[in-house]
Amino acid sequence: MPEDPSPAIAVSTVIFRVHREQEGERGHLELPLVRRVRQPYLGRWALPGGPLHPTESLRDAARRNLRETTGLDPRHLEQLYTFGAVERSPSDRVVSIVYWALVRDDEAERARLGENVAWFDADQVPELAFDHDEIVMWALKRLRAKVGYTRIAHALLTDEFTLADLRGVTEAILSRRLDAANFRRQVEASGTVEPTGRFQAGGRHRPPALYRSTAQEELLR
Amino acid sequence: MPEDPSPAIAVSTVIFRVHREQEGERGHLELPLVRRVRQPYLGRWALPGGPLHPTESLRDAARRNLRETTGLDPRHLEQLYTFGAVERSPSDRVVSIVYWALVRDDEAERARLGENVAWFDADQVPELAFDHDEIVMWALKRLRAKVGYTRIAHALLTDEFTLADLRGVTEAILSRRLDAANFRRQVEASGTVEPTGRFQAGGRHRPPALYRSTAQEELLR
Repeated sequence: MPEDPSPAIAVSTVIFRVHREQEGERGHLELPLVRRVRQPYLGRWALPGGPLHPTESLRDAARRNLRETTGLDPRHLEQLYTFGAVERSPSDRVVSIVYWALVRDDEAERARLGENVAWFDADQVPELAFDHDEIVMWALKRLRAKVGYTRIAHALLTDEFTLADLRGVTEAILSRRLDAANFRRQVEASGTVEPTGRFQAGGRHRPPALYRSTAQEELLR
Repeated sequence: MPEDPSPAIAVSTVIFRVHREQEGERGHLELPLVRRVRQPYLGRWALPGGPLHPTESLRDAARRNLRETTGLDPRHLEQLYTFGAVERSPSDRVVSIVYWALVRDDEAERARLGENVAWFDADQVPELAFDHDEIVMWALKRLRAKVGYTRIAHALLTDEFTLADLRGVTEAILSRRLDAANFRRQVEASGTVEPTGRFQAGGRHRPPALYRSTAQEELLR
């Protein structure tokens, strides 16, 4: 009697950026998807990912996803969750270890997108292959919960940023407006940022102060 | 040329309780370990766990670990992290999906321990099989980080508890004493507990008030 085969292992990666078409525009939370070129779900969009190679670590597999999809090396890449429901793949059973990555908009813009890859608004993704809709929902829920009590938004910004930049990214993640004065007060009281002593370039009378993150460790946990 | 085999999948579970030998004694954070009865690491202690069965979900496998080890059904059981370093097992590659469970001391005392299972002080575990030392360190770090800003300690207590009970469990997790007055003030301000209106039985002149958790959702995330 043949033994039931052990489930296969895949690694998938949810990659977020907050993208602005131009300066001063409202930002949108986006993620890249890959159009499938084989069955099952041929032609459907899916999260970047694939089988775990025998000699690579889980993190290296996620790093490979990030590089192949967006051309970027990871700055913020952490394990999110492992999805292993029995029926989540139509043929053989697959357990997917999911990582998430946060990338800066300026870096994403300079990098080179992989084949069959496109950025989508995180709240308007098409119906995805496998259980990837559920995975995206999960990642969004975690991101939105964490933006309230961690430094996670800093990973989406350049090293120096104004409080307006930080608010813009936070608003894009939460998909709602925040009161500017309240936001400033909360951020200043939190100790999560510190002034650099520099100011944003530009011809304005009172240029806004530049801040940097006080984060020492991983931002996504 | 034979293909490299896909890594095998295992599910392991870190189970915590705060145990007191008798009323009024200081509690200790403990976890059950299983003595291995086969190679590799024959005779070494290890976390409860084993291969994922083809028709069970990851959570069901963790639930099975908990039942086989402690005789308990899960109240608080959540995924912790997936460990997949290439060399973590001496023979074939194994990716381990680790869950953690919090159990109440009174329930653990009434339940029936599996064969070759014993409780160990979390800070004094022997050298374990595979990378299980690292997994225990990771779980301890998460537990200790979370006890400061979540309701996680409530999972180790009966439904109604005094603030002294809650402090005792928190002290056992952190492995240090806390100032009683400060602790009371912080807990009362946090909104994480509410008074039940009842008081602890006993012949004392001013019996301590009983509280319950205001938690609605998972406690371990």
